[in-house]
This record gives sequence, C-alpha cells and structure tokens, in this order.
Amino acid sequence: PANKKLLVLPGDGIGPEVVREVRRVIDWMDRRRSVTFDIEEGLVGGAAIDALGHPCPDRTMQQAERADAILFGSVGGPKWDSLPFEGRPELGILRLRKELGLFANLRPAIVWSPLAQASSLKAELVDGLDLMIVRESTGGIYFGEPRGIETLPDGTRRGFDTESYTEEEITRVARLAFELASKRSGRLTSVEKANVMQSGRFWREIVTRVGAEFPGVELSHMYADNCAMQLASRPKQFDVILASNLFGDLLSDLAAAVTGSLGMLPSATLGAPDSSGRRHALYEPIHGSAPDIAGKGIANPCAQILSFAMLLRWSFDMEEDAVLIEGAVEKVLTGGLRTADIMVPGAARVGTSIMGEAVVREL
Amino acid sequence: PANKKLLVLPGDGIGPEVVREVRRVIDWMDRRRSVTFDIEEGLVGGAAIDALGHPCPDRTMQQAERADAILFGSVGGPKWDSLPFEGRPELGILRLRKELGLFANLRPAIVWSPLAQASSLKAELVDGLDLMIVRESTGGIYFGEPRGIETLPDGTRRGFDTESYTEEEITRVARLAFELASKRSGRLTSVEKANVMQSGRFWREIVTRVGAEFPGVELSHMYADNCAMQLASRPKQFDVILASNLFGDLLSDLAAAVTGSLGMLPSATLGAPDSSGRRHALYEPIHGSAPDIAGKGIANPCAQILSFAMLLRWSFDMEEDAVLIEGAVEKVLTGGLRTADIMVPGAARVGTSIMGEAVVREL
Ligand SMILES: CC(C)[C@H](C(=O)O)[C@@H](O)C(=O)O
Ligand SMILES: CC(C)[C@H](C(=O)O)[C@@H](O)C(=O)O
Repeated sequence: PANKKLLVLPGDGIGPEVVREVRRVIDWMDRRRSVTFDIEEGLVGGAAIDALGHPCPDRTMQQAERADAILFGSVGGPKWDSLPFEGRPELGILRLRKELGLFANLRPAIVWSPLAQASSLKAELVDGLDLMIVRESTGGIYFGEPRGIETLPDGTRRGFDTESYTEEEITRVARLAFELASKRSGRLTSVEKANVMQSGRFWREIVTRVGAEFPGVELSHMYADNCAMQLASRPKQFDVILASNLFGDLLSDLAAAVTGSLGMLPSATLGAPDSSGRRHALYEPIHGSAPDIAGKGIANPCAQILSFAMLLRWSFDMEEDAVLIEGAVEKVLTGGLRTADIMVPGAARVGTSIMGEAVVREL
Repeated sequence: PANKKLLVLPGDGIGPEVVREVRRVIDWMDRRRSVTFDIEEGLVGGAAIDALGHPCPDRTMQQAERADAILFGSVGGPKWDSLPFEGRPELGILRLRKELGLFANLRPAIVWSPLAQASSLKAELVDGLDLMIVRESTGGIYFGEPRGIETLPDGTRRGFDTESYTEEEITRVARLAFELASKRSGRLTSVEKANVMQSGRFWREIVTRVGAEFPGVELSHMYADNCAMQLASRPKQFDVILASNLFGDLLSDLAAAVTGSLGMLPSATLGAPDSSGRRHALYEPIHGSAPDIAGKGIANPCAQILSFAMLLRWSFDMEEDAVLIEGAVEKVLTGGLRTADIMVPGAARVGTSIMGEAVVREL
C-alpha cells in the first residue's frame, strides 16, 4: 500500500522547535518499525505571511487536502500583532479547521502521575485526572454571520458577531462525543448557557435527542459558568465534556491549566469520514506559539510528540505505536527529566532537544 | 433626611435563609448605630412565578424603581426547570439588570487568610488574593438581537444569538473599571477574543481609547481563554479584570471557585448616576440558589451579609459600617466558626443562623 501522507506545518514561535523533535520519533519509526511516511512540509501562520503574504496560502490548503493527516505546530506572535483582522496569523488554523471540515476538536486533559505536583491545584485533586473535552470547531461565533464593526444611521458604532448552530452541526459533534464517552466511563457532560442563550437552549435540545441513540451513556447538562467553577475545584468529576467552539475554547484551556502541564497536552481535530472512511484530521499541541521562550531551546516538546501519537491512533490506526510513544514519554518523566515548564525541585532540568532525544532513547 | 429605601428580594433556594441573617445585621444597625432603613420586601424568581405568574412582576419593578438599593438573594431551582424560556426564573435578575440599567457587575474574588486552605489551589497561590472582576451586565449576547430558534427555508433548524456592543456600552463600563483600578493597584486587564470576534476587536479598540483618559492605569489585553488559564494557575497576577457579559460570567465564577469560598463572595451591580448623583444598584451573593442545600439551615450567610456591606459602601456611602461588618465576618472566621462549605478539620461546624448570630455578636 502507498505510504501515509503526512503534512507537517510547524508555524511560528516554538512550533518549529518542537516539531523538530517529532522528526526524531518519525526517524525512529522508519528505522525500527519500518513505517515510512510521505512527509511534506508547508507554511502557515506568521511564517506563511512572511513568505507568501497569507496566513494560510492556497498552496498550504492544497497540501492539506491531499494529506492523510496534518501535524500542526502553532501560530502567531508579536511580530504579526498589528496586522489587520483579515490577515492575522490565527486565520492559518481557522481556515484549515473550516475548509477541511474539522468539526470536532478533541482535547484531553491528563495529569501524568509524576507531574501531579506541577498543578496549581492540590495534588490529590488532580492526580489521575483524565478527561476529554470535545469542542465543536467549525461553527458557532467563530464563523457565524453577520459579523463586523459598523456605524449605525444615528452615528453609533458597534461591533457584533453571531453565535449560530444548526441541528446538523450539533448532531455530528454530539454523536462523536457520545461515541467517545461510550468507550470511556460512559459519562458525558454537555455545556451551554441554555438559561441565557437561544443557541444554548437549542444545543441542549439536540444533544438530548442524540443522547437517546446512546442509552449506555449518562448525559448531564451543565451551565458554562458552573463548568468553569467545577473544573477549577473538582475536575475529577468529569469524563467527557462537550461544548461549543467558544465555550470549548475557554474550558479546554482551563482544563489544561488545571493539569499544570500545558506543555504535555496534545489535541486532535477531526473531520467527518467520507464514503471510503477517510477523514481529514489535524493534530496540534494545546500550548500556543509561546513567543516569549521561542528560539531558546527550552520549550517542552512532549505535547507535540503526544500530538503525533494521537495522529497515529486516530488517523493511521496504529494504536500500538501510539501507546509505545506515550509510554516512552511517561518513562522519561518518571526518570526525572523535566523541561522548565514542568520543573520541580530535585528533577533534572533539560532543554527541548535533550527531552526529545530521551523520548527516542526510551523507545 | 428621609430614611434610605431598601428593597429586599430574597428569591429562591437558600436566598430567603441567608437574607434572614442580614436582617439581624440591619436590626443591629437600627439599635446600635441609629440607622433606620425603610425596608420593603418583594418577589422575584420562582417565588414570584408561584405567587404572581412572572419571574419579575411589574410590581417588583416598581418597587425596584423607587428603591435606593436592592438586596437580592438568588433565583432558580429544579421546580421551575421545565418552564419555557420566556418564563424562567433567571429572567428575574435579567430584567432587573436590563431595565434598571445596571451595566456594571462588580465581583470581588477575595481570599480571607483564615480560608486560604479552603481553595482547591495550593494555599500559597491564593493567600491574600484580592481581585475585582468588572463584568458588563446589560449588553452583549445576553440581550443582543436577533436571537431565536428558527427553521430555515430548506428545512434546517438552527439556534442563534447576537453578541453586540456599542461604543457607549463599552465606554461606560470601561470608565468605571479604570476608575476602580486607579483606586486600587493601577492595573487593569481587559479580556476578549479580539483574535476571533469582531466585537472583541471593537472592545479592545474602545477600551484602549478610554485608557488614554487614565494615564495612571496600566492597561493590558488578554484573550479570554488565556485569562481562564491564568486565573486557574496564577490568580494573584491580576488586580482588576474587565470583561463582557458572557466572558465576565464565566471568569467571575471561575475566580470565585479559585478562592475556594464561594459562600463568602458578594457582588454589586451598578447603574449610571443620574443628574442628582443617584444610581440604581443591586447587591447579591455570587453563589446561586443552591437548591440541594436549601431549607437545611446549613447555607453560609456570609456572602449575603457581605453583599449588604457592599451596599452600605457603594449606595449609602457608609464606608465605616461596611468595614465594621467585614471586620466582624473576618473575626468570626478567625475564631474558627465554619459553615459546611468552608469547613476544615479542627474548625467548629455551624449552621446558617449560628453563623449570622456570631457576626452580630462580633459587631
Ligand atoms: C489561535 C486561536 C484562533 C485559537 C482559537 O481560539 O480557537 C486557539 O486559542 C485555540 O484554542 O486553538
Ligand atoms: C442566573 C443567570 C442568568 C446569571 C447569569 O448568567 O448572568 C448568573 O449566572 C449570574 O452570573 O448572575
């Protein structure tokens, strides 16, 4: 069979540095597991703006269309902060999500036991935490029309956006969340502000209806403000959380912060399978481009490496290799190596490439 | 001079129980400080639905219009969960905010030293925490039009809402936040998703412009997802946070959770002063109606008592009395009394009325 086509989009900031460590893992797979990928590299974000004048050039979109999976670094940085809205680096990731139909953003928040101390929360409240946020990622207020900044006839200026969800948009992401929940603990928490927003009421109605297809999953509904509270105080009560694009953005970052190890957290964004079962998918760390530490060789490459493990699992059905890589990362942590972001007294502080090498050595 | 007119709206759940403890404080003021209020009591939320068929009847609105300040308990509960959107108990508070023009919701997140252990965060990360969230509360997606659930011509159903902010809406709440910041540490963090939302871009533009009027205040901008992260990991970095209605809802609840003592947190919602300097204002605890513990006599009355202290400070210019009450609450905590929500090993667990009595005794 043809080799798997992998598109690598390092992007900006620490993106290229941490993606480089994944390359080592890929080399190891090539040598030891005789798995060879067809790898293309592409431009996105500020890097693409600088080279080609657009945060997500058509060339990148064409590469993405043909790829079996995309490994994404991160985009953005102060250099591009003053660009107009239509040209900002974030459009790199937003265009990919939207045009490839990547509607389900899966964001695990996991606390690796050796890192429970790294959390701002008391260790016993997070030790063993393993929850998954399913965030809708092609709809809602991120893309809803109309939107803009306008001057009304009476001279008043205003800025506005539209939160909008169709039945179909909610149904497909809810189904995916229920499927996931049924393979995990069987508990799903759907989040909205049904007490305030019409789209929230509608969200609750449709999710409840989809729930009828999954009698084995226990569905509960929670207001977004309460969910933020609960994540910060008793995060282990959750298994799978389903939320809109905007609430999912906040809550998944919050859940990541609660783990205390943002530099360890991967994510997957999945499209709908076509008739041959092929689906677009993009994998990226939760952490952003971290311009403050870019170029210093101190970024934690684990989230990017674990994003690659998710890629193997979800896009290439290579569960065994995914587990191997995750196990190697865990062993490195248990062995006491730490990048600056997860440093604790008594551990050995290392940089990006030593961490990457250590993971390959464990493999 | 005429007595101050105080409207008391106990509402649902634990609302009436904790408001009762404020009555003791008011009695004390009457006896010992010779301050007498003209107190009216009114109906709101589920209680108003049951009695008069509306969560915020016109009668209550009329009482609110004539009051100098409103002390609000909380609304909502499972009994009214199946009511239609147009009749839900939450409309009680939403109508009051909107029709009285209560545009600035001030939500302090304070960690009282004796309670630092109650936080889910490590005590050293929250000890001494004292931040203030200024949440816009009459605009944004809570009230924006158009909104609804509709069937499109092609048969697709969708739910939608509008996030909308005018220049004037942002300016007035920003000004209040800057004024507050200038009286505190001089630091203001304005929160939005300017990288994704047009209303966020506009928010940032207007807040920046208002900032020029306050050269003594250091303004910074933060994306809402990042702010959620920072609140959960390093909350003490903040002094005053300014946010839209929706972001403010989530972030203030999150900040409250981070303190670990939700049952201790008051809030104030202020309108614009009229030409005589009179402004509508409503004071309520951050915690909700807590139906699970209602009627058991175990709710913490401190947030409601401290809301009354905020009322004295902001509406009646009675700083001295506000400080006395806050001091009495602190002494009770230091003395070791705790309601269930803030219980720690070694403290004395008490119910609502013992706690209320203890505060009056300290006074
Ligand atoms: C970069 C930005 C547009 C993006 C978002 O808001 O979705 C980021 O915060 C994320 O969560 O992936
Ligand atoms: C009761 C509800 C409508 C309300 C809100 O969302 O504003 C509550 O969560 C609050 O924060 O006061």
